[in-house]
Amino acid sequence: MSTDYTFLKACRGEATDYTPVWLMRQAGRYLPQYMAVRKNVSFLELCKTPELAAEVTIQPIDYLNADAAILFSDILTPVEPMGLKLDFVPGPVFENPVRTQADVDALRIPEMEEDVPYVLETIKILRREFEGRVPLIGFGGAPFTLACYMVEGKGSKDFAQIKRMMYGAPELYAQLMEKVTEMDRLYLNAQIKAGAQVIQIFDTWGGIMSPLDYERFILPYTKKLIDGLDRANVPIIHFVKGSGTMLDTVAKAGSDVMGLDWHVNLGQARDIIGPDIAVQGNLDPTVLYAPKAHIETEVKRILDENAGRPGHIFNLGHGILPTVDPEHAKFMVECVHRLSGK
Amino acid sequence: MSTDYTFLKACRGEATDYTPVWLMRQAGRYLPQYMAVRKNVSFLELCKTPELAAEVTIQPIDYLNADAAILFSDILTPVEPMGLKLDFVPGPVFENPVRTQADVDALRIPEMEEDVPYVLETIKILRREFEGRVPLIGFGGAPFTLACYMVEGKGSKDFAQIKRMMYGAPELYAQLMEKVTEMDRLYLNAQIKAGAQVIQIFDTWGGIMSPLDYERFILPYTKKLIDGLDRANVPIIHFVKGSGTMLDTVAKAGSDVMGLDWHVNLGQARDIIGPDIAVQGNLDPTVLYAPKAHIETEVKRILDENAGRPGHIFNLGHGILPTVDPEHAKFMVECVHRLSGK
Repeated sequence: MSTDYTFLKACRGEATDYTPVWLMRQAGRYLPQYMAVRKNVSFLELCKTPELAAEVTIQPIDYLNADAAILFSDILTPVEPMGLKLDFVPGPVFENPVRTQADVDALRIPEMEEDVPYVLETIKILRREFEGRVPLIGFGGAPFTLACYMVEGKGSKDFAQIKRMMYGAPELYAQLMEKVTEMDRLYLNAQIKAGAQVIQIFDTWGGIMSPLDYERFILPYTKKLIDGLDRANVPIIHFVKGSGTMLDTVAKAGSDVMGLDWHVNLGQARDIIGPDIAVQGNLDPTVLYAPKAHIETEVKRILDENAGRPGHIFNLGHGILPTVDPEHAKFMVECVHRLSGK
Repeated sequence: MSTDYTFLKACRGEATDYTPVWLMRQAGRYLPQYMAVRKNVSFLELCKTPELAAEVTIQPIDYLNADAAILFSDILTPVEPMGLKLDFVPGPVFENPVRTQADVDALRIPEMEEDVPYVLETIKILRREFEGRVPLIGFGGAPFTLACYMVEGKGSKDFAQIKRMMYGAPELYAQLMEKVTEMDRLYLNAQIKAGAQVIQIFDTWGGIMSPLDYERFILPYTKKLIDGLDRANVPIIHFVKGSGTMLDTVAKAGSDVMGLDWHVNLGQARDIIGPDIAVQGNLDPTVLYAPKAHIETEVKRILDENAGRPGHIFNLGHGILPTVDPEHAKFMVECVHRLSGK
């Protein structure tokens, strides 16, 4: 039974024989086999071609021996059919960012089966492929992170546009966030229906806010999203990068698992979060640049910080970096398994 | 007497009649009067021309009514005479980054009077200009932040080069850090000798590390630097951006004041840091994009979080953003003064 996967047990906070591990962005540019596929297609084409998206999802499972696979896609794919033209140059760019009431009114809620069929098809291929081997994680962006891209039109250093909207036109911001949250709910539930066994919500930009502003302007939407998911048998992982100073607030979103970045001591973070929420993390991704002996020491340190508590999924504290030696990533997985008793 | 300045009293943790305030990067691109000077000279020329550097240092004092001035310069100016060719394009770039033992061996310790006379001359001009009006803050980069630029050769997202050195060649890293720390000590003491009444140490990149790695690889050098400063009458402000999850560790560096970014609740941060260290901060710089009513609310919130404790200098939690309306910055200063009883 798929619910016996070690990774799923850990997500539910149950005791496991060893600590399961995967790496955020484990399907990606650091892997030569990924680059071999990627050199023939654009990033968006790769996301939209189920056979290829499935292929690169499988690669790190074969290579790394990770305990979970994560769908290869991009958090912005379901935003495009809301009416925004998406391109990667190589960072994501929307030609027509959302700034006005008319822009928000014009956003449509996609029909997932019609508008992002490739995502759902990729999930179905992968479930068949992985049956009995590893569980499959689906994912989406948190409403705030999606809204950041939609309003800024691209990545940003200062997030001037969305902050202007949030502080200066809070009702417009609320309307936008409601629409994005509803899209997200339908999108992630479609992934669950297609077979995703876990959902991870990435809030890449939630940590740019002060703790109070996070609670006022972001938390209500993430909580509404999580509450609206068909999660009876599907654990929800919630990762807010840069949230180490507001873990107690982020915990209120109600996920089963909280992702931790490397800015916190994992043991101290668990003390703050409490025993009812599992955690995922939290090796500094740059430690994979270190010699193997240092990687092993750091893996051990994090396992020691967890001190055997159930509900720990080992991961990096952010996505694996493109310039990391893949062998070091593989060694990290091996260390986690060996040092945690597999 | 200059030691009666409200700002200096707050740095020393003494009670003040009102809360002093200044803004990091208050001399900068958001001010039209700065841009008017800047359009005729390069950034480096501006740093190296005492009359002009003094002029842009004075501008925000006239315009904002801030309680302290900060020398206009760049943290990398004293690094150039160590033997690295510096350019701004517009971000800082070193043509010949430090990677090998030979590179570290080749670094020379500058003679400050010979190599950065313009910095010391600017300080002397400003002291004459400001006498009886506002105190002058000198500044430098923390050794780690300087080393990041020296090793990476430019800004970085992943800091792969310095992390590889730190983890893979720790003795080389230590030699580099010792040299940078010694340069920094001489540089900041030269600023003090020239008349700087406070020194702020900026550790822009210290927060990229895990708390344990901060303690192992950064703290010893910053502490050594601070211990080596001629600080009898000169308070030291230490600002590590992104250090909200390791304030107790950063406090061990031994500064008089700790800068706080906006990711922490100022009151909770003071509880962690303890009563013997003053704090500076911590308004989210993007709040200056908000309507004035919202800015006032947020200023009041931070003053309330401090709850009247002595030793609070109001500031942003990071540098003012170039696209902020200067009038909003001025309004913020006015709010701090009015709401704190000036």
